[in-house]
Order: sequence, then C-alpha cells, then structure tokens
Amino acid sequence: MSEVTMDKIVALCKSRGFIFPGSEIYGGLANTWDYGPLGVELINNIKKAWWKKFVQENPYNVGMDSAILMNREVWVASGHVGGFSDPLIDCKECKSRFRADKLIEEYYKGLGEEVVGIDGWTNEEMLKIIKEKEIKCPDCGKHRFTDIRQFNLMFKTFQGVTEDSKSEIYLRPETAQGIFVNFKNVARSCRCKVPFGIAQIGKSFRNEITPGNFIFRTREFEQMELEFFCKPGEDLEWFKYWKDFCYNWLVDLGMKPEKIRLRDHGKEELSHYSNATTDIEFQFPFGWGELWGIADRTDFDLKQHQEHSGKDLTYQDPHTNEKYIPYCIEPSVGVARLALAFLISSYEEEQLENDSRTVLKLHPYLAPFKAAVLPLSKKLSDDAVKIYHKLAKKFMVDFDDSGSIGKRYRRQDEVGTPFCITFDFDSLEDNCVTVRDRDTMEQQRISIDKLESYLEEKLQF
Amino acid sequence: MSEVTMDKIVALCKSRGFIFPGSEIYGGLANTWDYGPLGVELINNIKKAWWKKFVQENPYNVGMDSAILMNREVWVASGHVGGFSDPLIDCKECKSRFRADKLIEEYYKGLGEEVVGIDGWTNEEMLKIIKEKEIKCPDCGKHRFTDIRQFNLMFKTFQGVTEDSKSEIYLRPETAQGIFVNFKNVARSCRCKVPFGIAQIGKSFRNEITPGNFIFRTREFEQMELEFFCKPGEDLEWFKYWKDFCYNWLVDLGMKPEKIRLRDHGKEELSHYSNATTDIEFQFPFGWGELWGIADRTDFDLKQHQEHSGKDLTYQDPHTNEKYIPYCIEPSVGVARLALAFLISSYEEEQLENDSRTVLKLHPYLAPFKAAVLPLSKKLSDDAVKIYHKLAKKFMVDFDDSGSIGKRYRRQDEVGTPFCITFDFDSLEDNCVTVRDRDTMEQQRISIDKLESYLEEKLQF
Repeated sequence: MSEVTMDKIVALCKSRGFIFPGSEIYGGLANTWDYGPLGVELINNIKKAWWKKFVQENPYNVGMDSAILMNREVWVASGHVGGFSDPLIDCKECKSRFRADKLIEEYYKGLGEEVVGIDGWTNEEMLKIIKEKEIKCPDCGKHRFTDIRQFNLMFKTFQGVTEDSKSEIYLRPETAQGIFVNFKNVARSCRCKVPFGIAQIGKSFRNEITPGNFIFRTREFEQMELEFFCKPGEDLEWFKYWKDFCYNWLVDLGMKPEKIRLRDHGKEELSHYSNATTDIEFQFPFGWGELWGIADRTDFDLKQHQEHSGKDLTYQDPHTNEKYIPYCIEPSVGVARLALAFLISSYEEEQLENDSRTVLKLHPYLAPFKAAVLPLSKKLSDDAVKIYHKLAKKFMVDFDDSGSIGKRYRRQDEVGTPFCITFDFDSLEDNCVTVRDRDTMEQQRISIDKLESYLEEKLQF
Repeated sequence: MSEVTMDKIVALCKSRGFIFPGSEIYGGLANTWDYGPLGVELINNIKKAWWKKFVQENPYNVGMDSAILMNREVWVASGHVGGFSDPLIDCKECKSRFRADKLIEEYYKGLGEEVVGIDGWTNEEMLKIIKEKEIKCPDCGKHRFTDIRQFNLMFKTFQGVTEDSKSEIYLRPETAQGIFVNFKNVARSCRCKVPFGIAQIGKSFRNEITPGNFIFRTREFEQMELEFFCKPGEDLEWFKYWKDFCYNWLVDLGMKPEKIRLRDHGKEELSHYSNATTDIEFQFPFGWGELWGIADRTDFDLKQHQEHSGKDLTYQDPHTNEKYIPYCIEPSVGVARLALAFLISSYEEEQLENDSRTVLKLHPYLAPFKAAVLPLSKKLSDDAVKIYHKLAKKFMVDFDDSGSIGKRYRRQDEVGTPFCITFDFDSLEDNCVTVRDRDTMEQQRISIDKLESYLEEKLQF
C-alpha cells in the first residue's frame, strides 16, 4: 500500500467534488475553500454525527445557535480584545513578515530540539532569544529584525452607516462566548440543572498570519463546541468523561486508533485559569496536529462575564440552595479538520488481482452517498431509477448508468460509497438486486423490498 | 380564538428557549438574535426539510457549501460593489437618518396609495418627489433634508495584517455567487448535465439601515438558495416548476394556504436581466411580507463572471454539441423568516372545557421534540427513562418527570411536541404506554415495542 500524501488528498478532493479552492476563477483568496457536492455531504454527516451523540442522545446536553456578530463588550470580557493576538516581527532586509514564536520554534526544530510553553512568553522574552541566538530570516538569511508587535486576530467590521470606533464590531473568533453569554437564558428557559452542557456548531473567523495545509488551518472555519457546566470540585471527573467521550466518538466513526494520540498539556503550557487541558492529536501527512482540544476552564469565562456585564451568573442548586459559578469543561473541534482527518484515515490504495483501486473506507454514516444504484445496461435505467427514487426518500443515493460496471465501481470506491446496488436483467424477474460491499467487494443478492432495512442497519451509528 | 401577535410570538420564543436577544447581558446588539435549545432544533429541521426535497430526493440537484469570505472581484462582477446600496437621507434638523425610498413609500401609504417600482428610481427622482411633496421628517416633522447618498450594504473587513484597500474584503451579502463561481467545478467533478441545480445553505450579511420585526430582517441571516441551470428558452417552464415546488414545500410542511400568496413582479419592478420574478408572500402580524423570491435571472450572472474572470463558463450539450451559457432560475429563501412564518402559522390559543392552552401545531417534521416521555409518577422515572434513551437514538425526545401531567402536557403543547408518551403503573405490567396526540388530544394505548415505528410513520415528510 502506498503512502497517503496531502497532494493525493487535495487532488481527489478537487476532481471528485469534495473541496475546491475558494473564488478559484478569480485566482482564489488566501486559503479559502469551497465544499462541493460530495464535500458538503461529508461535513454535514460529521456535524450530524456530532449533534447526534453530543445533543440528541445525551441526556445532559442541549443545543443552541448564537449569532456571529456580537456586542463588542463580549470580546472585552472574554479577553479577546486585549489578548487574542499573534506576535509579529518583520525582516528589515527583505520585508518578510513572521510570527516571532514560529520563528523561534523553527529555529529549535532545526537543532532537533523542542520549545514548550512559548505561548506564555512575552515579546521581550522572544526578542531576547532571537537576538541571543542570532536567528536568521528564513527568506533572506539575514539577521536584521524589527521589534515584535502584537497583531489582534479578530476580523473587524463596522455595523451601521458610520465607520467609527462606536460601530466597530468583530467576527467571532470562537463560538464558545455565544454559549457563555446565554448561560442564564438557556438554563432558565429549559430548566437545566447542573451538570448540563450547551452545544453549538457554527462559523468562526481568525485573521491568521499563516493559514495553510489545505483545510487544516483556514481563516474562516466551522467549530463544534460544547460548554459543559458542572459543580466545582467535580470538574476533573467530568474532564475525563468528555475526553473519553470524544476519543470514542472518533474511533466509533472509524478513525484509526494508531493515527490518534492524546497529549496532556504540562503545567507550563496550561492557561492560568485551566485545571487541565488535553489535545487529541491526529497524524497528518505533515506531522501530528491538534484535532480536538478538551479543556477544564474552571469558572473563568462565566466569572469574566459576570464582572463585565454586572449580571448575576451564579447557579443555585435546587436541592441544597448552594450558590456557585459552575466550572466548565470545553471540548472544541473544527469540522474541516475532522473532515481532513477522516479523509486521510480512510484513504487506501489497493492492488487487486488485475487492477488497482483508490478507496475511501469512510464509516457508512459519514459517506456522502450511502449507496449507488447502477443498472447493468442502459435498457434497465427506467426500472432501476425507481429504486433510486425510493431509496432517496431516506438516504443520499447516487444513480449512474454510464460506462462499464467496473469503472462505475471504481468511481464509487473513490468517493467512499459503501454499497453499490446493481440492477440486472434478472432483477426484472426475481425482484432482487446485487449489493456489493465497498470494503470486502463481496456481492450479495438481496430482495428489492428489503434494501431499505438492509441499508438502515448498515448505516447505524 | 384570539389573534396571534408579534408580542406573543416573541414572548413565547424567549420564555421557552426558541430565540433570545443576541448579546443580551451586554444590552444586546442591534437586532441580532440567538437560537436557544428549541430554536436551533426548529431551524435545523427547516434546513433538513429543504435539503431533503431540494437535494436528497431531487434527481436534478446537488448541494455545496462555499466560503463566506470571497475574492473581492466576485462582488465587482456580480454588481454588488457598484450597485448594492441603499439611498440614505438625513434630516438636517434632528439628524435622524432614513432610507429615502422608505420615506416616500411611507408618505404614500399615509395617503392610502402604493408606490410601485421605487427600487429602480434614481437619487434625483427620489429627491424631486421628497421636495415636491414636501415630505416631512417622521421624527421631528420638519422638511429640511440633506441630499441622498448611496450607502453600500456589504460589511467590509480586512484580511491579513495591513488595513488597506488591497486587503479589503466583504462578508458575502448572498450565497448565490459562491454557486456561480463554482459552476464549472461542480459540473465537471459531478458530471452534471443541464438541466441541473446547485443548492446551498449558509450565512449572509447585509448592513441594513433598518433591520427589524424580530427575526424578519436581520443583518446576519441564513439563506437557502438554489441556482437551477437550464437551456435558454426552457427557462419560463422551469420557473413555473420551481415556483410550484416551493409553494408545495410550504403547504406540505403545514403552512396555512390562506396565509400565503404569490405576487408576480410587474414589468416596471423586474430587474433589467430578469425574465420573470415571483415573491411568495406570507401574512405576518405586521402585514404581508416577502418569504421566498423566485427569479428567472437568465444568463446574467454566469455572463458577468465570464466577462470579469476571463474564464469560459459556457456549457456544451453532450448530445448536440451546442454551446451556450445556461439560464438560471433562483428560488431564494431565508431560514429565520421561514421559522417565523411557521411559528406564526402554527400558533393557536384554544379554549378547552375547563382550561385553555397555547399550542404550536407545527408539522411533526419541524417540531423541536418529536415526543416527550412523561412518567406518571417520579417512582416510574427509572423505567420511563429507558424509553427516552431508546427513542433518543432516532429522534429528538424530551423527558419530563416534574409536576402534574396536565402541566407537562401544556408545556409540550406550547413548544409543539406532537406526541406525549405517558408511562404509568400499568406500563410495568402490560409493556404499553399512552400516546397523546398534540392536536386532537386523543389518547391511544401503544406497545412500547411499536413506539419507534409508530413515530417514524407520523414524522414522515
């Protein structure tokens, strides 16, 4: 089996309608991506699978969907206006611009060493190292840098007619704050009792200096965040619960365990308010990268909002009457990053007896098409299409009556369709079809009347 | 039956977790709204119902999901940079700001007359009428206005580190253009043959001067748009097809036909490129308002993009080899507006024998909870919760073991739950539950084993 590379994934995504470069006919727009007909099904299925396990089936959690545009004070309270920035440094020689922390990390990487906790360094500390080590500009090789300045990562815009500071607002850099500011509204209207969680899926925006690696890091991205509120003191127990829950969700959806690892943040890496943080990392072709961050954020966020808004955000236990600000566990994951990981984890090139094939061994729940209806001959199309219409009431199904059956199998393998349903001349007589399994390539004769329940069972998650 | 008012809808939405004012603890942000636990289910169900009929079951259409941030040239080509603006006028006396067109419309409304086609008027034409009729400022009653100036409705932001015109981009004001620029990518990768459509659901942003009427008009909103490409000459036929399709979709989902009307645009109201446009209007408590716009946009959009991008966007018929730029039918609808219309259409206050109730007679497919499991006594909770867990694998289900059964029924009626499942002491013996129908309030004894298939059948759409 040959290795999966980013180039192969990007090429497959483009040619088969998963992911196109954004605004492509105008030369693109810095690392934006558009999801094509198959890509949108994949990301919708990922979102459905998350909502199913985190909201629908989970007795603790409810969902919500807050606006992208929020009052500026939200971001003052959350610390984003003051502190959500990257340290930028320019090369005076060639005018290239870098993130100072990345410059230092790359320098040490070149020496085979690793820097830990650089997120917590001040500008002065970083500049000192750059000078001491005489770190060179990766572009021109000179060591002549400007000072470091902080660049806020929030996209700014203006609401209303005038462009002044009063009308300045931001595109949210995370969905989490939309949950925190609605803590009371949700708890009150849905009579939630601690422990309970609020889950949200939605777009966020970060004006990253260096987006890249395909859909791994983009300026516009979709997050799936849960804020789980619990009693202080019970937080570490719940932290473990959600860490396991997220890990199992991935593995149950077919992600290869050998491609995932858990990395606990050390003390020097933890945010000052966090009791514990773990990253679930995935082995991308370009190295291990963060997939899912699970953090025990204590009462930091609700406390900040209580202070800034002047509103009481404490919770009163209905049994003990005890009042407290709940602690919060936050599992946070990006949809596109998950999609990329599932594509990579499921991509295989197989050498067959007289042939080879590329196959996406996606979990049936995630596969864009659940089945493809393939009449063996064009003469059978009118009859076969009836099966397509019947199944389409329940599932996303493809219909293809072009070319040889072998070619059509290969095309469906390549986009991860778990079942190919071949309608042949016998089907007219015996009311049966041949169902081919994507992974085993085994074929089975099944009554047309039983197709729906057959698929339903196979697609369960 | 008393009348449904906006106040009643807004109050119900807030108290029962459908819709909260955005950023409320910070005093809000001009007409932004957050969807709570029940609201997010309602809008998700609306989106699912649209995707099911417009993509999943429709053999012509595929879906996609393009980025909100696009290359600036897209909006130059589409005409939004040049022409997507509102005519603003200020009162010199009291400094109030108005849309000049709305000022004129309101003036004539006061006279019991209607202005048609004002969208096409120039600033000069509008100013002339305002002066001739000596239209007065609605705030201070004086007639002393500034000139009219055009205010572009696109939200601007800056991508990257520098805030100059080169890095200036926009939040998309519609999802449609993301489809047009991907016309070739989609057609090629999915081997689409005309006629075919591309459907998309996503957020758009318009810096409206006067958002309002709850979620009817908001600056941030979610659109569901289909761009359906057909052969020139066949466009009016397809226009009718999609107009009927949209109307039927609404009625099949339970919208009251007497609350909907179709309004064809007259010649003077049509955009210069449009062959036909019809609005499906809904009778909101504040008057008839546009719900769904269906427009025959001819080849205008693809032609603009072909000219501006220099890329060939013609389609070649595989049978006749004929080359042409397809015509396009666009049904475009907002999710929030639909949600509001469904809430209003389904809201009823009923006088019962010894009681009254508020009930949302939502189509079961749209209802946030499909069923509520209600143990008759707290002693039965442990047994009843098993039914909840079983059903939750398939449907959004509520569980409520608080207070009297009558109160619990009322609460479920108010949020539109179509079925209440009561677990009583007999259930322990006969393995049956009582299922109460929201609309008829009739009760039926059903075997627990058959609950799933019972609900499945009732929820079909």
